[in-house]
Amino acid sequence: MLLHLSTWAEIEAQLAKSKAVVIPIGSNEQHGPTGLLGTDWLCPEIIAHEAQKIAPGLLVAPTFNIGMAQHHLDFPGTIALRPSTFMLAIGDWCRSLAHHGFEQLYFLNGHGGNVATIEAAFSELYAEASYAGRKAGYACKLKNWWDLKGVMRLAARQFPEGHGSHATPSEIAVTQWAYPHAIKSANYAPQIAPTGPIREAADFRGRYADGRMGSDPGQATPEKGGELVATAAAALIEDVAEFEREG
Amino acid sequence: MLLHLSTWAEIEAQLAKSKAVVIPIGSNEQHGPTGLLGTDWLCPEIIAHEAQKIAPGLLVAPTFNIGMAQHHLDFPGTIALRPSTFMLAIGDWCRSLAHHGFEQLYFLNGHGGNVATIEAAFSELYAEASYAGRKAGYACKLKNWWDLKGVMRLAARQFPEGHGSHATPSEIAVTQWAYPHAIKSANYAPQIAPTGPIREAADFRGRYADGRMGSDPGQATPEKGGELVATAAAALIEDVAEFEREG
Amino acid sequence: MLLHLSTWAEIEAQLAKSKAVVIPIGSNEQHGPTGLLGTDWLCPEIIAHEAQKIAPGLLVAPTFNIGMAQHHLDFPGTIALRPSTFMLAIGDWCRSLAHHGFEQLYFLNGHGGNVATIEAAFSELYAEASYAGRKAGYACKLKNWWDLKGVMRLAARQFPEGHGSHATPSEIAVTQWAYPHAIKSANYAPQIAPTGPIREAADFRGRYADGRMGSDPGQATPEKGGELVATAAAALIEDVAEFEREG
Amino acid sequence: MLLHLSTWAEIEAQLAKSKAVVIPIGSNEQHGPTGLLGTDWLCPEIIAHEAQKIAPGLLVAPTFNIGMAQHHLDFPGTIALRPSTFMLAIGDWCRSLAHHGFEQLYFLNGHGGNVATIEAAFSELYAEASYAGRKAGYACKLKNWWDLKGVMRLAARQFPEGHGSHATPSEIAVTQWAYPHAIKSANYAPQIAPTGPIREAADFRGRYADGRMGSDPGQATPEKGGELVATAAAALIEDVAEFEREG
Amino acid sequence: MLLHLSTWAEIEAQLAKSKAVVIPIGSNEQHGPTGLLGTDWLCPEIIAHEAQKIAPGLLVAPTFNIGMAQHHLDFPGTIALRPSTFMLAIGDWCRSLAHHGFEQLYFLNGHGGNVATIEAAFSELYAEASYAGRKAGYACKLKNWWDLKGVMRLAARQFPEGHGSHATPSEIAVTQWAYPHAIKSANYAPQIAPTGPIREAADFRGRYADGRMGSDPGQATPEKGGELVATAAAALIEDVAEFEREG
Amino acid sequence: MLLHLSTWAEIEAQLAKSKAVVIPIGSNEQHGPTGLLGTDWLCPEIIAHEAQKIAPGLLVAPTFNIGMAQHHLDFPGTIALRPSTFMLAIGDWCRSLAHHGFEQLYFLNGHGGNVATIEAAFSELYAEASYAGRKAGYACKLKNWWDLKGVMRLAARQFPEGHGSHATPSEIAVTQWAYPHAIKSANYAPQIAPTGPIREAADFRGRYADGRMGSDPGQATPEKGGELVATAAAALIEDVAEFEREG
Repeated sequence: MLLHLSTWAEIEAQLAKSKAVVIPIGSNEQHGPTGLLGTDWLCPEIIAHEAQKIAPGLLVAPTFNIGMAQHHLDFPGTIALRPSTFMLAIGDWCRSLAHHGFEQLYFLNGHGGNVATIEAAFSELYAEASYAGRKAGYACKLKNWWDLKGVMRLAARQFPEGHGSHATPSEIAVTQWAYPHAIKSANYAPQIAPTGPIREAADFRGRYADGRMGSDPGQATPEKGGELVATAAAALIEDVAEFEREG
Repeated sequence: MLLHLSTWAEIEAQLAKSKAVVIPIGSNEQHGPTGLLGTDWLCPEIIAHEAQKIAPGLLVAPTFNIGMAQHHLDFPGTIALRPSTFMLAIGDWCRSLAHHGFEQLYFLNGHGGNVATIEAAFSELYAEASYAGRKAGYACKLKNWWDLKGVMRLAARQFPEGHGSHATPSEIAVTQWAYPHAIKSANYAPQIAPTGPIREAADFRGRYADGRMGSDPGQATPEKGGELVATAAAALIEDVAEFEREG
Repeated sequence: MLLHLSTWAEIEAQLAKSKAVVIPIGSNEQHGPTGLLGTDWLCPEIIAHEAQKIAPGLLVAPTFNIGMAQHHLDFPGTIALRPSTFMLAIGDWCRSLAHHGFEQLYFLNGHGGNVATIEAAFSELYAEASYAGRKAGYACKLKNWWDLKGVMRLAARQFPEGHGSHATPSEIAVTQWAYPHAIKSANYAPQIAPTGPIREAADFRGRYADGRMGSDPGQATPEKGGELVATAAAALIEDVAEFEREG
Repeated sequence: MLLHLSTWAEIEAQLAKSKAVVIPIGSNEQHGPTGLLGTDWLCPEIIAHEAQKIAPGLLVAPTFNIGMAQHHLDFPGTIALRPSTFMLAIGDWCRSLAHHGFEQLYFLNGHGGNVATIEAAFSELYAEASYAGRKAGYACKLKNWWDLKGVMRLAARQFPEGHGSHATPSEIAVTQWAYPHAIKSANYAPQIAPTGPIREAADFRGRYADGRMGSDPGQATPEKGGELVATAAAALIEDVAEFEREG
Repeated sequence: MLLHLSTWAEIEAQLAKSKAVVIPIGSNEQHGPTGLLGTDWLCPEIIAHEAQKIAPGLLVAPTFNIGMAQHHLDFPGTIALRPSTFMLAIGDWCRSLAHHGFEQLYFLNGHGGNVATIEAAFSELYAEASYAGRKAGYACKLKNWWDLKGVMRLAARQFPEGHGSHATPSEIAVTQWAYPHAIKSANYAPQIAPTGPIREAADFRGRYADGRMGSDPGQATPEKGGELVATAAAALIEDVAEFEREG
Repeated sequence: MLLHLSTWAEIEAQLAKSKAVVIPIGSNEQHGPTGLLGTDWLCPEIIAHEAQKIAPGLLVAPTFNIGMAQHHLDFPGTIALRPSTFMLAIGDWCRSLAHHGFEQLYFLNGHGGNVATIEAAFSELYAEASYAGRKAGYACKLKNWWDLKGVMRLAARQFPEGHGSHATPSEIAVTQWAYPHAIKSANYAPQIAPTGPIREAADFRGRYADGRMGSDPGQATPEKGGELVATAAAALIEDVAEFEREG
C-alpha cells in the first residue's frame, strides 16, 4: 500500500490494522561514471514498492529523496542537505506520522552517508520526550537495504571483487533492473576505484576522480539487480513484522 | 531529461547547454474523500515529466514532495514540514544546484499553502548575498502549475462550478490521468464543500469535515486530467524558456 | 487606545471588553528619491493611530517597524531582518499577546515584501498547535492597508497613472499628510520608474537606479494622503470588528 | 536627524560626515500601576529625539521597541522577545547598518533587563569576524540612558528615597514630560515596593504584586522628567562624540 | 561530593538531602605570557572542589570548561563558543539537572566575558516557563568567584596595584597554588598592561599585544593563591547555603 | 602536553612542530550501580593524559565532558546535550582549533552514544567548505578508546563474559585505576544485565532497571584498568602519528 496513492480515509482504516510505516530514504548524489544520480533513493524505493506488492498490508510512505551528501557536491547533479537541516526534516516527518498514531517508523535507507545523521535525528526526537519526562509513544528504526537479511551474502556471491563502498555494482544493478532504459556505460580507469577517508567535497573529488570508491560497477546487470530486489523485499517484509512485534 | 536518471557527467554536459532546472514541489496531505494524499506533489511531477518528454533539453530535478501542510495534520497520512524547516531544506536544495552552476531555479509548485514559505525561502537565500554585498549568481522562480498559461481558463471551462481551492477537480483529474488504477470514489455531502479561513489543524478539521474546501471533486475524469497536463506541459516549456531569456 | 500609553491594569480591563489587537507592521527601507525611509511602517501606524482616535475601543500595539527588506540593502538607511529572524520575532510578539488572552491578532501591514514572511510566520505558529494536537486559541490576520475597503479605488482615482509598486504616490502622500515638515522633492528621471523582478540587493539596485518601481511619487500631496488615511482608518475599524465577529 | 524621516540619499550624504548612528532600544512591558507599558522604549526615544533637535548632525535610527521582558509576561500588555530572538534581531539591525558603512552603532537603552542579551548579541556579531579571522569594521556600544553623565546624580537628588529598580519615578517622569496627556495615578500599597530576584513570569508576579520593584513612582512629575531629558540629551551628544573619536 | 565521581544512586540519595548543585563554569583562553589557557575554568573548579572537601554535603558538577571567548581567538589555544551555542549548552545542562529535581543551580563563574551570555541563557530558560504560563520549578544563580564574600578585599590587599581585568595576578595565583609544576615566567613589557574596550579578536590582539588587560601577573605567588582559595571556598559554602534558604 | 596547563605562546611554539591535537570527549551519565557518572569522559581523559606523559609532544585539549545521553536522563546525575546542541558545540571547538592552524583534530571518544552525533557534526563542518567550494583546511577524526589497537582483544581476554555495552567492566576498571578512592560496590541482580534497543529515557529506565546493558561490572579491578590504559595510551600515540602522516 502506497501512502501517496491512498486517501486519508484509507490511511485511517490502515491504522486500525497496523501502526507501522516504511519510509524509503536516500540521497541524490553522483554515483560514478555510470551510476544514476538517484541511485541511493531509488534503491530503497524500488525495494519497498516491490515489498508492498507482495505484502499489500505493508504501508510505504513517499520517498525521502535528499540526504547527507555534502562530500559529493563537487560532482554536478548532487543535491545535499546539511546534517542540521536533514535532522529537522526527519523530525517533522516523524512528528507528522506519530501524530496520526503510527508507532513504528521504519526508515529503509539507501545511503551510507545518511546513517550518522539519521541516528542523530532519532536521538533529537527521543530527547524531546526524555527532557519532558514522558514516553515518546513511537519508535524509530533505521535499516540500510544492504543490511536486510541475505542481501550482503548475495552481493558477495554476485560481486566477489570490486564491490567497494560507493557506486557499488549491487546498487547500480538494482536501478538497472528497475530502469532498464537508463542503463549507462563507460570505460573505468582504474577498473577498481581507490578507497580512503571522506571529508569535504573538494577533498573528495581530489581523491576519487570519477566518483567511485573501491568499486567496479561494470559488473552490474539487471538480472543481478532483480535477484537483489527479490531478496531485499522479502527480508524487508519480515523485518518490519519483527519491528511491529517488538513494539 | 530527468536529473535522477542521469549521471553526473551527463549533468555536466547539460550545464554547458542550459543553466535552468525545474524542481517539482508540492505537499503530501489529505485531499478529501477521494483525492490522493500525494496529489500536490504528483501534479507538478506529472506535468514536468511530461514536459521533458516533449522537450528533452528540459532538465527536471527530483520532486520535493513534502511541504507546508500543518493545517492538514488532523487527517491521517498528511506529512508536513514546519515553515522554518521547509525554508532550510529549500535553501540547501538551491545552494546545491547553484553550486553546480545552475542559474535559473524554477520551482513548479502544486500546493497553494506552499507559496508564502517558498517565497520567504527565496528571500532568505537572496539575503545571504545582500548582507554580504555581492551578486547571488542565480535566480529563483516559483510558479504554481495552475498559473501556467492557459490552465486556469481550461479548468474554468471544464469545471465552471465547484472548482474550489482544495481537493479541486482539476488536480484530482491530473492524478487520475497519471494513476488510473488509483481512482477513488465517494459520496460527497455536501456536493460542494464549504470555504473559510485556514488556521491550525484542529480548526481546519472542525470547519472542513471531509477535507475539501469549496470543491466538488466528483467532476474529475482522467480525460480532463490529460487535457490539463498537455496544456500545462506545453506552457511550462515556454515559461522556462522565458525565464532563461530573462536571465 | 494605544497599548504603549496604557498601564497593564488598563489592558487587563480592555481584555474584558475585546480580545482584538491591531499591530501596525512595516519596514524601514529606501523609498526612492523623495520617500521617507520609514514610509512602510509609518503608513500603518498613521492609519491605526487615526482609527483608534475615532474608535477609542480599538487597541493598537506598538509598531513593528523593521521587516523583510533585504532587496533594499544597497540603498543607505534600509534596515532589514532576514525572513527567519522576522518569523521568530513575529512569533514572540504573538505568543506574548496570546498569553494575555488576545484572540484576534490583526497585523496592519505597510510593506508588500513582508507578506510572504508574515504568512509563513503565522503558519509556523499554528504548526505548534497542530503538531501538539490542540487548538491554537487565537487567530492571526494580515491585511495590507491598501487592501482595506475603498483604498485601492481611491488611489486609482487619485493616481490613474504611475502608481507603481514601490515608492508609490499613495504611501508617500500618507506620510506627507502626517509629517508635512518632512516632505522632500527631487527630479525624477524617468518620470515613471521601470518594473521587473525582485531578487538580491545588488540586482535590485542595478535594475532600479533611484529605488522606485513603476511609480511616479511626484503626484503625492498631503491632501490626497489625508483622504487615504480617512478612508483606510474607517475601513480598518470595520475590518477588525468583522474579524472579532468571525472569532 | 531622524533616519526614518530621511531619504536614502540624505543618509548617503550623512555618511560622508559621520559614521555614527544612535539606536534607541527598550522594551514594552508593565511598569506598575501608573507606568506606561511603553516606558522603557519611550524614554530612550524621547531623549535621543531631543538630542538630535539640539545637535542636528546626530543621526537617530527608528526605535527598537521590544526587548527581553519574559519576566513581565504575567502582566497584560507586555510583549517580549526570547533572548535568542532578540539577539538575532539585533544582529540583523547591526548587519544592515554596517552594510551602509556605519562604524559606530550606539544603542541607547531603556531597560535593565536588556543589558545581558544586548551584550551577548554584540559578542555574537563580533564572533563572526573573529572566527573568520578578519576585522569587524564597526563597533557596538550599549549605554543605559540613566548611565549617561549626570543623570544618576540628578535622579538621586530628585528621588532620594524610593527610586528602586523597576517602574522608577525617574523613567515615569520622563514619559510624563513627553506624554502629559497619558499621566496616570493610583494608590500605592506599600508606598515603596519590595525588591528581590528576577526569574520567570509567575515567580515575578508572585513577588511583586503590582509590578513595581523597590520604587515609589508617585514622586514623578513632568518637570522632573524635563530636567532628566535635558541632562540626558546633552550627555548623549557628548558620549556619541566620544565614541566617534575613539573609533 | 563530586558528581562525576558518584553513582546515580548516590545522587538520588543526595537529592533527598539537598536540591542544590554547584557548576564550575569558565573559559579556555589565553591569559597573557604566563597565565595558563585553562585559568578561567581551573579557578572555579579549584575553589569548588576545595569547598566540597570542607563541606562534603556540597555537590559539585563537572566543570563547564569552554565559554564566551571569541575576542581571544587570535591567541593560540583559545577555544570559544559563540554566545548562541553557549546558551543552548547551558540550557541543556540546566534542563538535565532540573529533570532530576535540582532546584538551585549555582554557577560559579571564572570568566567575566561569560557573564552576559550566562544571564541571557538563564532568561531563555525562564522564558520557556513564562510563555507557557507555569512555574519554572528551579532557580539559576551566577556568581563570579571573585565576587564571593571577602575575595575582592583580599585581592586588593595582595595586589594594590596592577590587578587589572584579564590575566590578573589573583587568578594566576590560584592556579599556581593548585598546579605548582605549571608555573611560568616571562618578562612583562610594560609591567602593567593597557586597558580599553573588548571587541572582535583582531581588534583585541591589536590593542593588547601579549594578551593582558591592565594587569601585572608577576605579583602572583602560590601562597597568595592559597589564601584566595581558602577565602573563596568558605564563602562559597555560605553563599550556596543562603541560596538554598532563599529557595 | 596539556593545552589547559600551557600558555598561548607555548601553543604557538607547539604548532610549529605539529598540527595535531587530541580532544578527549565523552559523556556524564549513569553507569549502573557502581560506575561513576563521569566514566565516559574520564576514560578518554585518563588515557590521553597518560599518553602525553609518555609522548610529551602529544598535545591534549581540555576534555569535552558532556555528550549525547538523553536516554540516561531518568537516572539522577546524567547531564545531556541534545544532538543539535552537541553538534553546534563541537563545531565551535573545531572552528576555534582550526583558527589557530590545527589541521588534525582527533577526538578520543568514551561514549558509544556520541558516535552518530559527532560524525554528523563533522559533516556539518565539512559542509561549510563544500557549499562554499573551498578546501576545509583541516580533518576531523573520531576514535573510540576501545577501538584503539589491542584494546578490544585485551578486554576480551580480561572479561570473556559479561562485558556488555554499557557500564562495562573495562571502562569501570579504567576509572578504578585512576580514582582508586572512588571504587564502589553493589550486589548485581541479575549478574549480567539485559540488552535491547535504546530509545527515550523512560523506555530506557523501563528496560534496564539499574542502568547496565549486558554487562557484569563486578569483574573490574584497578589492575585490569591499568593494563587497559597502558595499551590504549600506547596505541593512541601511534594512531595520532598515523593521522598526522595521512595529513
